[in-house]
Amino acid sequence: MSIDSIDAAPPATAQTEQAVREQALVEEVIRSFASGGSDRDREVMNSLVRHLHAFIRDIRLTEDEWSKAIGFLTRAGHITTDTRQEFVLLSDVLGASMQTIAVNNEAVGDATEATVFGPFFVENAPQIDIGGDIAGGAAGEPCWVEGTVRDTDGNPLPGARIEVWEADEDGFYDVQCSDGRTAARAHLFADKDGRYSFWGLTPTPYPIPYDGPVGQMLEHYGRSPIRASHLHFMVSAPQKRTLVTHIFVDGCKYLDRDSVFGVKESLIKEFAAQPAGTPTPDGRDLGGREWTRARFDIVLPPAGPSTATATKTS
Amino acid sequence: MSIDSIDAAPPATAQTEQAVREQALVEEVIRSFASGGSDRDREVMNSLVRHLHAFIRDIRLTEDEWSKAIGFLTRAGHITTDTRQEFVLLSDVLGASMQTIAVNNEAVGDATEATVFGPFFVENAPQIDIGGDIAGGAAGEPCWVEGTVRDTDGNPLPGARIEVWEADEDGFYDVQCSDGRTAARAHLFADKDGRYSFWGLTPTPYPIPYDGPVGQMLEHYGRSPIRASHLHFMVSAPQKRTLVTHIFVDGCKYLDRDSVFGVKESLIKEFAAQPAGTPTPDGRDLGGREWTRARFDIVLPPAGPSTATATKTS
Repeated sequence: MSIDSIDAAPPATAQTEQAVREQALVEEVIRSFASGGSDRDREVMNSLVRHLHAFIRDIRLTEDEWSKAIGFLTRAGHITTDTRQEFVLLSDVLGASMQTIAVNNEAVGDATEATVFGPFFVENAPQIDIGGDIAGGAAGEPCWVEGTVRDTDGNPLPGARIEVWEADEDGFYDVQCSDGRTAARAHLFADKDGRYSFWGLTPTPYPIPYDGPVGQMLEHYGRSPIRASHLHFMVSAPQKRTLVTHIFVDGCKYLDRDSVFGVKESLIKEFAAQPAGTPTPDGRDLGGREWTRARFDIVLPPAGPSTATATKTS
Repeated sequence: MSIDSIDAAPPATAQTEQAVREQALVEEVIRSFASGGSDRDREVMNSLVRHLHAFIRDIRLTEDEWSKAIGFLTRAGHITTDTRQEFVLLSDVLGASMQTIAVNNEAVGDATEATVFGPFFVENAPQIDIGGDIAGGAAGEPCWVEGTVRDTDGNPLPGARIEVWEADEDGFYDVQCSDGRTAARAHLFADKDGRYSFWGLTPTPYPIPYDGPVGQMLEHYGRSPIRASHLHFMVSAPQKRTLVTHIFVDGCKYLDRDSVFGVKESLIKEFAAQPAGTPTPDGRDLGGREWTRARFDIVLPPAGPSTATATKTS
């Protein structure tokens, strides 16, 4: 075969043979997963293999691109530690985290919308009383947050557990510091009327860690690593679907370009600026500092298998 | 909303809203990659994001499954070193490596079929003369391999570079040993008539490394980690498509269950058993040992942009 004949497209029969060969490989791989694991496991692997192979075939992935992908995953693995999770960041910037949140938190009545979990939650954060301060020494402008926790029928959920965590004014979570500190995170419980309140820090925008392969990818595509200003919540109550979400600061200029696609209109809240000297709700003396206040009323839908069933039918 | 009403599927409008919300996220993520990188980069990311999100949506990936995937990738990253590549193994056992090979090595005339590269190739393996021994002290039954390297018009390719590498009789490549040895790998060049020959080891079946997350996945699905007996080749010549392939041993009982889907009928070769004392082709004295001999005639298609064009049209 001469170089000239290669310039033309292969004959139709050769193309068909190629497609048959590629599809046969897909089926061979799926069969290899067919005799172990649970029904669900096999369903997941079947879908994973079909979509992975469809990607490779659609894009005609080159061997050089394949090698770059292996190198990317290797670097992501090597930068990942107990406190730095590059694979979560990768999932986040590809929107995969947010899509997973979406399929697991389908709209139920007026239930509060969920958003990404992020890599900075820590189990066993300190407990504070209602009205307590989560800062634990973290620097930032004081912010009073209050609201209620209710179910989708409007009934208060007394004792609902509320985990809150956020970055300090420099954009760092405590776990990103190397000194083992615990700061700007806590948990509290709603009162008998489902009410809660606490002192936190007015959220500020910050970049996701961008000194690794995910940051390089963002830079390559001209994307900003900045996350719109936010405060994390995880709220749970018996027989209710656990809510993982944030509230975002109205007016933050990064609301339309959040690096992890976490912003939802319903989660944007006014953090009302309070001039220095404005009396605080609990009489706390802020020493003449400015502060902000925000309200976040939370609605949890029912949990359990029935919710999962509803999810599966969609 | 009561628990009873949750048991029923959501009303059609709610499902539509959910689908709209999920699709809007896909488009938002794709837009985020639209202003940087090359045209090809954006094409790849567009396809990656679409298939990744389609997988999550089709399977309704649970948050627990997402967490397990993050954990799996993390463990894969942490076990990966300069000489242990768990992400290549993962790609291999998902058939992704073989599919990438397939789309990059479309049938051209009687060109030799390609198969997986594997994680054990090493640059700068020692050079041997034609008829030399690649063993370098590795244990195993001697095996004489000979053949020709030609183009798809049947012309010999003098000076074609032939890299060969294989495991020893215990199933280990040199790089899997911790002593830095170089063994059972070499490169040589075809003579003026495109002919080559060398002494290697008769290939034996061996498992891919299965003490990591990929091995655990195989076990979970009842899959064997064994690779059918094979000898690796990488063959290159100017203006020719580089061939990465193996030859497999006819009669090996793992030919139908190779853990990385590498076997192709055309690559199965007779390794003819030679009783002790059978004279060797080059007069080498094997000290009364048994040996085998195999023939592998190699055909390389044209390389370069014209081949890539042919690939793109399919």
